[in-house]
Amino acid sequence: MKLIDFRKTDITDGFWKKRIDTVSEVSVYNVYKRFKETGRFAALNCTWKPGDPYEPHIFWDSDIAKWIESVAFIIENRPCPDLEKVIDDVADAMEKNADEYGYFNSCYLVHDKPRWSDRTDHELYCAGHLVEAAVAYYIATGKRKLLDMMEKYLDYIYKVFLVDGSAAFKTPGHEEIELALIKLYDLTKNEKYLEMCSFFIDNRGTPNDSEYTGVAHKYSQSHIPVREQKTAEGHCVRACYLYTGMADLARITDDSELFNACKSIFDDIINKKMYITGGIGSAARGEAFTVPYDLPDLTAYSESCAALSLAWFAQRMLLIENDSKYADTIEKVLYNNGLSSVSLDGKSFFYVNPLAIRTHLLERNTSQVNTHENLPITQRKEVFDCSCCPPNITRFIASVADFLYTYDDDTVYVHQYMSSETKTDGFTISQKTDYPNSGRIEISTNNIKNLAVRIPAWCESFCIVANGESADFELEKGYAKISNLEENSIITIDFDVTPFIVYPTSKIKDYISRAAVQRGPVVYCAEGANNDFSVMSFRIDTDTEFSEEYSELYGTYTLTANGRIPVENEQLYSRKKEEMIPAKIKLIPYFAFANNGESDMEVFLHY
Amino acid sequence: MKLIDFRKTDITDGFWKKRIDTVSEVSVYNVYKRFKETGRFAALNCTWKPGDPYEPHIFWDSDIAKWIESVAFIIENRPCPDLEKVIDDVADAMEKNADEYGYFNSCYLVHDKPRWSDRTDHELYCAGHLVEAAVAYYIATGKRKLLDMMEKYLDYIYKVFLVDGSAAFKTPGHEEIELALIKLYDLTKNEKYLEMCSFFIDNRGTPNDSEYTGVAHKYSQSHIPVREQKTAEGHCVRACYLYTGMADLARITDDSELFNACKSIFDDIINKKMYITGGIGSAARGEAFTVPYDLPDLTAYSESCAALSLAWFAQRMLLIENDSKYADTIEKVLYNNGLSSVSLDGKSFFYVNPLAIRTHLLERNTSQVNTHENLPITQRKEVFDCSCCPPNITRFIASVADFLYTYDDDTVYVHQYMSSETKTDGFTISQKTDYPNSGRIEISTNNIKNLAVRIPAWCESFCIVANGESADFELEKGYAKISNLEENSIITIDFDVTPFIVYPTSKIKDYISRAAVQRGPVVYCAEGANNDFSVMSFRIDTDTEFSEEYSELYGTYTLTANGRIPVENEQLYSRKKEEMIPAKIKLIPYFAFANNGESDMEVFLHY
Repeated sequence: MKLIDFRKTDITDGFWKKRIDTVSEVSVYNVYKRFKETGRFAALNCTWKPGDPYEPHIFWDSDIAKWIESVAFIIENRPCPDLEKVIDDVADAMEKNADEYGYFNSCYLVHDKPRWSDRTDHELYCAGHLVEAAVAYYIATGKRKLLDMMEKYLDYIYKVFLVDGSAAFKTPGHEEIELALIKLYDLTKNEKYLEMCSFFIDNRGTPNDSEYTGVAHKYSQSHIPVREQKTAEGHCVRACYLYTGMADLARITDDSELFNACKSIFDDIINKKMYITGGIGSAARGEAFTVPYDLPDLTAYSESCAALSLAWFAQRMLLIENDSKYADTIEKVLYNNGLSSVSLDGKSFFYVNPLAIRTHLLERNTSQVNTHENLPITQRKEVFDCSCCPPNITRFIASVADFLYTYDDDTVYVHQYMSSETKTDGFTISQKTDYPNSGRIEISTNNIKNLAVRIPAWCESFCIVANGESADFELEKGYAKISNLEENSIITIDFDVTPFIVYPTSKIKDYISRAAVQRGPVVYCAEGANNDFSVMSFRIDTDTEFSEEYSELYGTYTLTANGRIPVENEQLYSRKKEEMIPAKIKLIPYFAFANNGESDMEVFLHY
Repeated sequence: MKLIDFRKTDITDGFWKKRIDTVSEVSVYNVYKRFKETGRFAALNCTWKPGDPYEPHIFWDSDIAKWIESVAFIIENRPCPDLEKVIDDVADAMEKNADEYGYFNSCYLVHDKPRWSDRTDHELYCAGHLVEAAVAYYIATGKRKLLDMMEKYLDYIYKVFLVDGSAAFKTPGHEEIELALIKLYDLTKNEKYLEMCSFFIDNRGTPNDSEYTGVAHKYSQSHIPVREQKTAEGHCVRACYLYTGMADLARITDDSELFNACKSIFDDIINKKMYITGGIGSAARGEAFTVPYDLPDLTAYSESCAALSLAWFAQRMLLIENDSKYADTIEKVLYNNGLSSVSLDGKSFFYVNPLAIRTHLLERNTSQVNTHENLPITQRKEVFDCSCCPPNITRFIASVADFLYTYDDDTVYVHQYMSSETKTDGFTISQKTDYPNSGRIEISTNNIKNLAVRIPAWCESFCIVANGESADFELEKGYAKISNLEENSIITIDFDVTPFIVYPTSKIKDYISRAAVQRGPVVYCAEGANNDFSVMSFRIDTDTEFSEEYSELYGTYTLTANGRIPVENEQLYSRKKEEMIPAKIKLIPYFAFANNGESDMEVFLHY
């Protein structure tokens, strides 16, 4: 299967157009501003010295790289000469400061630290992100400076790791370069990059891969060789970047053993370790996957970057296997944890995305001793000390059309629904839709023989009309495949988007007797700010009707549901059940929570 | 009000006789053995030097002291010459090693550390426990050596703290000495000890009380003067030892301001910060009280010593105010968190008493990175590095009759129900009962004018017969007061002990839609070991009938209740409610959990 690159698609209208506009017009500028104010751009000049403010950090180059990539994606459709100038200046600074081997890492250079001495130090991680940035910027502008520089740098890395073996470690402590090498291979077809990717993947977790000991192996997915890994383990972003690179390599080299490891890991995630929002990595300590069904809402870590990395992993899997579970997972991330990461105004970001906020417990955070666990922050910030997420979110949304289609010789697979126009060399396809607000999608095709449209896992009722007639289709792994289309065809799909209740398995201790509300792919939540009672203690009627009201602010509907709330009582424990009185609860999309001040929030309502 | 000292009561039979026997015949011996094996007794010789095993720790003297006190309590009723010999040897060692001022602290002496230099170092805490031990041992045996030694030591402490002010701090970092001074004052009537107690209490939290800064003030209840404290804060055991001393002082000095602070704090605990088991201090970090309604079951800290200290605090409050909430709280501790602290065989102990165990989450503990919070250990141990709890439990149970009665000029208050015979100078009272297994108590009195018997808060139906006739009584703050008894009277009480369901307030996030089961004062739990399904996902029918079966092992009944369990399904989230099938659940007393191997456990069942 092949991907239709987002550059071939124009998102024309609707839900995602608004998000892309906000990212392009607000977010990249605001991230730039805050990165500049916090010394991240200045760091590239490598003039920092002890005593100066804003000491360069080991992952700062990757922050800049992701920002460059975001801009490169945006300028494919809308010129931003001011930002292009910034990037050209970055390239100049890097060129000036890279050493004779092409090595560039602003943190290492100013600290004059022995390079390749510490596996945890993100050198290969930063290099990987810079490679991605260079590739994207070259494609967008044709400018080669960054690309040439990174190719030279990779020659050096090749020598250090694959020829001399002179580094203190064999594989990166923070994976990322693997998938970046594939992007460069896709561009250049230079087999050397494939060889490097294989090297880092194949050595991982083998006796060659000496560094950490004991449990820390799991933290960086180095506990066993990757082909033997069947479960998602350790630091979540590291893990999913690795799995993405593994899936890339499995596809290109037709490595079924590697693919089977990816499949098993993917299933482990979506069947045992994923939040209803598409978030992953429930443990703050280690920012990590934990044991199956350990998905607390209040202390959910669920890092923004982790959800995005899961979407990318799923996307790579879709290129090998047509199974809607991958695109369903991407959809979960898109409309929930992916979007919750950024404020509605596009200026601020969540690093951690909790699934519940209980303000009465927040005082715990203010005391060094009166806490048994810290609760996540409850408001988005414009910049973090560790600001991996903001520029990751901007590049994710700017290239969201990457998730729309894959195709092979005779079939185009439609994975996501967005108003858009796509032109490739061989065919065109466009969508008109108000999805997810409406379940109706009108797809126009030209020169497409077969069309396979994803039936979302959440959807229980749908109909498809092809060229004015009820369509014949075959259901195959979640896709309705309509064969032998006319040269120009119009396919209309209607998914029932009536709000519904979602029940988690009883295996998750936190959600027994609790349920969430969804409308299409959008998960809802209740905020204290919109309800004049404790949303935590609300009990939803599971047979409630929902009333819907369109919100311009959210770009989708808010909902109202029926239920009950307890009458206030003073006893901690009582032989009498609390008296309950009827109440209506206002629900807003989860992605929009915390845009209205600090407030209680619940995704899973008691019933 | 006056207390009837436990030494005047003989527990003759029934539930508590068995516990006292186990403590006397097994626990004190086993604690002795393990303390000896871990160098705690040898430490008193002050011959330890660097390189030797078992380095004396700052609180080891207090471990020994509580063990001595336990033995002193036990030998009131049953001679143990072997243990008395051990104590006499301890007294000899202490006498030999105490310095010219009477100072003794084995840890400080061997480390030659500047004394009174560090408020956190438990010197006054150890001294306090040694004072309690000396008092108890003197009362039991008439031997004065320990008592004389501690009186000399206190003279020195008086000089350092009250005269010279030469210590680096004003009040103890770990409170305890306050209540110990009251015990010594009760014995000696020496006003100096009352003055010392007042000094430590009055200076606490004042500008004089300089040491910690910021939040750590709360940790040791030093954030504001104690009379202004309205809520229970900080390290739980420190807090309740302080509150106990405050209540003692308030009573003796008739200090209503101090008493009102105690009342407000007590209500804060029982209305907002107490587990259904009488456990307190939900936070592992700081072993502390946290914010109201923050009472998680899985990560409950609920230290054994904390529950005991709450019972002692409540007991002191009973000496000022006849309100059954105090004795109800003591009863909660007695039958639940107090007893769960020790294994049924009397050999091993819980430091932390969780209210739920979910074995599938335990793997979290085994990894340094794959955890967001450590779960408590799930099996009792014979000795801990920090072994404050084991000898605290032994002295608590050995003196359990202290909780039975208080009296004033014309009324005896019966707070707890145990088969027992009590003789004081002025009157006698005895109970025949199989409480808590039966709700029937037959009380015989001689020369008691009025009798006030506690109607437990859990009890919804009872009757009282006095001398063969339905009794006239007045209900007053939870006590049924029967006036003008005959010189020799027999009062028979019947409490309905039918098992019932207890509903926590919806303000506790963890227990919404969950309920506990109680029979009399005994809280029940479900263990995985006794049920062939996940007890976590069981839903109890709230109108269930309970069947009862007597267990010799537990000394009380096990219960069986009706409910439903989910049919296994593989989906994390589903539009369909899980299918439920009927099931019966076996419940055992909470105090008996973890006597049957590692197993899941739940106190609060979903409904």
